Amino acid sequence: MSNAAAYALSTPDGAFEKVTIERRELGPHDVLIDVEYAGICHSDIHTARDEWGGTRYPCVPGHEIAGLVAAVGGAVTKFRVGDRVGVGCMVDSCGVCGPCLADEEQYCTRGATMTYNTPVDPAVQPEGYTMGGYSTQVVVTENFVVSIPDGIALDVAAPLLCAGITLFSPLRHWGAGPGKRVAIIGMGGLGHVGVKIAAAMGAEVTVLSHSLSKQDDGKRFGAHHYYATGDQQIFRDLRGRFDLILNTVSADLPIDRYMRLLNLDGTLVMLGVPENPISVKSFNLSGLRRSLSGSMIGGIAQTQEMLNFCAEHGIGAEIELISADEIDSAYDRVVASDVRYRFVIDTATI
Amino acid sequence: MSNAAAYALSTPDGAFEKVTIERRELGPHDVLIDVEYAGICHSDIHTARDEWGGTRYPCVPGHEIAGLVAAVGGAVTKFRVGDRVGVGCMVDSCGVCGPCLADEEQYCTRGATMTYNTPVDPAVQPEGYTMGGYSTQVVVTENFVVSIPDGIALDVAAPLLCAGITLFSPLRHWGAGPGKRVAIIGMGGLGHVGVKIAAAMGAEVTVLSHSLSKQDDGKRFGAHHYYATGDQQIFRDLRGRFDLILNTVSADLPIDRYMRLLNLDGTLVMLGVPENPISVKSFNLSGLRRSLSGSMIGGIAQTQEMLNFCAEHGIGAEIELISADEIDSAYDRVVASDVRYRFVIDTATI
Repeated sequence: MSNAAAYALSTPDGAFEKVTIERRELGPHDVLIDVEYAGICHSDIHTARDEWGGTRYPCVPGHEIAGLVAAVGGAVTKFRVGDRVGVGCMVDSCGVCGPCLADEEQYCTRGATMTYNTPVDPAVQPEGYTMGGYSTQVVVTENFVVSIPDGIALDVAAPLLCAGITLFSPLRHWGAGPGKRVAIIGMGGLGHVGVKIAAAMGAEVTVLSHSLSKQDDGKRFGAHHYYATGDQQIFRDLRGRFDLILNTVSADLPIDRYMRLLNLDGTLVMLGVPENPISVKSFNLSGLRRSLSGSMIGGIAQTQEMLNFCAEHGIGAEIELISADEIDSAYDRVVASDVRYRFVIDTATI
Repeated sequence: MSNAAAYALSTPDGAFEKVTIERRELGPHDVLIDVEYAGICHSDIHTARDEWGGTRYPCVPGHEIAGLVAAVGGAVTKFRVGDRVGVGCMVDSCGVCGPCLADEEQYCTRGATMTYNTPVDPAVQPEGYTMGGYSTQVVVTENFVVSIPDGIALDVAAPLLCAGITLFSPLRHWGAGPGKRVAIIGMGGLGHVGVKIAAAMGAEVTVLSHSLSKQDDGKRFGAHHYYATGDQQIFRDLRGRFDLILNTVSADLPIDRYMRLLNLDGTLVMLGVPENPISVKSFNLSGLRRSLSGSMIGGIAQTQEMLNFCAEHGIGAEIELISADEIDSAYDRVVASDVRYRFVIDTATI
C-alpha cells in the first residue's frame, strides 16, 4: 500500500480538508496514476454534501481524472510509465453480464464500481469504499484506464471523462451527423461539450438555454442556432424541428413542450436525473412516433473513441483552473451556475 | 353521386339506426367498394359516443373495412372490379410532407384524412365530413386502398386494417424477430393480433394480461409465456427481461413498473392513448438506456406488407360476426371487455 494526499469532506456541511488516504498495492493488472487534474462535476457536489443520501465519510470525490502513469502491475500490457491517461466515472464492473460483454459497462447488471463512494473489498480500497480523483494518486485496473491522445492538454481533457462521454455516447447512439438536427438543452458543463462534439460530428446544432447570456460562446463552440427558452414563441416556431434533443438540465422541465419540438422518430434523451418523475402525454409520443429516453455516461471503449475523436477535432472542455483550497467556493459557484464551463483542480496544489 | 345504406348514431347516447348516405361520384383515381365486413374498434365507440369530443352527427364509424371492388375511376391502375380490398383508418393525406414522402401517411404533418368524422370538402363526402365502413359502399382514392390476398377470408381480414397494422408497424419498426423478447400488455382486439404477428415474426412472445383467463387462447395464438399482472411477483421476476413491450391498454397503467421489465436499449411503446399523462422516473430510462415511445397505426405501404405477411402465415383476427342491428349491444360488450376478440359486422345485414 502507498499513501496519497487528498481533499475530503468529513461531514455533509463541512469544508474540504487535506487528508492522507491509502491506495492499494499494485496488482498484476493495476495502473498507478499520478493525478494531474481532476474536474468538478455536479455529481461530486450531490455526493459530497449527501444530497442523494448514502455518502460515506470522509468523502473524496472526483471522476474526471487526467494524469500520468507512475507504475504498472506485472501483467499490464496497455500502458507504460509516463503515459497520459484518464479515468472516468467507473473503475470496475462484473465483466460477464450482457451489458459488460457489449462494452456497455455503465449498465452492468450487477452495478459498476463507481470511482468514489462505492463499497468495495478493503483489498481494493483500504477504507472499504472507493475514493476519487481529488487526490495525488489513484490505482485503477487497466481495463478502466483510457489513453489521452497528445492532441489534448490534460487539464481540458479531464472533464471529457464524464461530461464528454455523457454527451458523446447518446450523440453516437442516436446517429448525430450530417443532415441531423440536434438540440441541446442547457449550456453548462455538460452542454457546452455537447455543442462542440455534435458540431464536429456534422450535425446542425441548436442550443436551448434559459437565456441568451451565453449565446456568443455557444456560436463559438459550433452551435448554428441559439434560443432562450424563456421566450414562449420558440415552442411554437420550433415545433417538429429536431431529430434528437439532449436534455442536460437536472431541474424539472416541462418535458411535453420539448417533446413537441421533435420530428418524426425523434428522441429526447434525459442526461440529468431530475428529482421528480417526468410527465409526458401519450399523444406527444404516438403522434409522431417520438421517444423519451435516457442515457448514462458511456462504456470504456466508447470513452476511448470519444477522446480520440476530441483530439482529432481539437476539442477540449472550457475550464477554470483552481487550486485545491478553492474547492468549497467552486462548489458554491457551480450550484449558482457561475462557471464557464467546468472547474478543474490542479492537483499539484493538494 | 350514389346512395349507400349505413348504420349511424345521431346523438351521443342514442342507438344505431339505418340511414341513407351519399357517396361521391367516382373521380379518375377513385375506387368504389362494396363493403362486405366492417370491424368494430374501440375508437369507433369513443367517437360515436362523443367521448373524445368533436363528433359530427349523424356519425357512421368503421375503419376496418374489407370488401370487393364494384367500380373504378378511369385512371385507376392498381385495382379491377371484383378485387378483394381493404380500407383502414385513413382515406387520404397531403402526399407532399416529409412523413407522407416517407410512406408514413399516418404522421402527415397536415393531418391525414381519417376514414370517419374528419372534415372534408363536400366533393369528397357530401355531408362535409367523412363517413366510415358501417355502410354498404364506400368510395376511396386508390392510394388508400390495399389488396387483401386470397389467403385470408374477408371477415377475419377486416380487423387487420386497424388492429393488425397498429401492432405490425411497431413490431417491424423496433425489429421484432428471432432472438428478441417481446411482451404485449393486454390481450384484447389489438393484443391478440399482436401475439399472432410477433410469434410469426419469430420473436419470443410474452403476454402480460390482467388475469390468466385468456391464457389458453394466448398460447394457442403463439405466446410462449403468459403472466397475470395482478401478481406483483412478476414485476420482480421479469425485471430487465424484454427488448420490446407493446402496451395495448388505454387505461392508466403504472408505466414505471413496466419500464423496469425492459432490458438494455429496450423500448415500451404506447399504442392506446390513456386519458392522463404518463409518469416515468428518469432513472428508469437512463439506468439502462430505455425508451418510452408511441406508435399510431402504420403507413399504407406497410399495411399492404402486413396483409401479405398475415396471408403468408395464415393469420386473421379472432372474430364474433354480428348483424348490423347488434351494434349497440356489441358496443356495450366491448366496453365490458366481453368479446373474443373483435366484433365484425356482416354488412349484408344493413
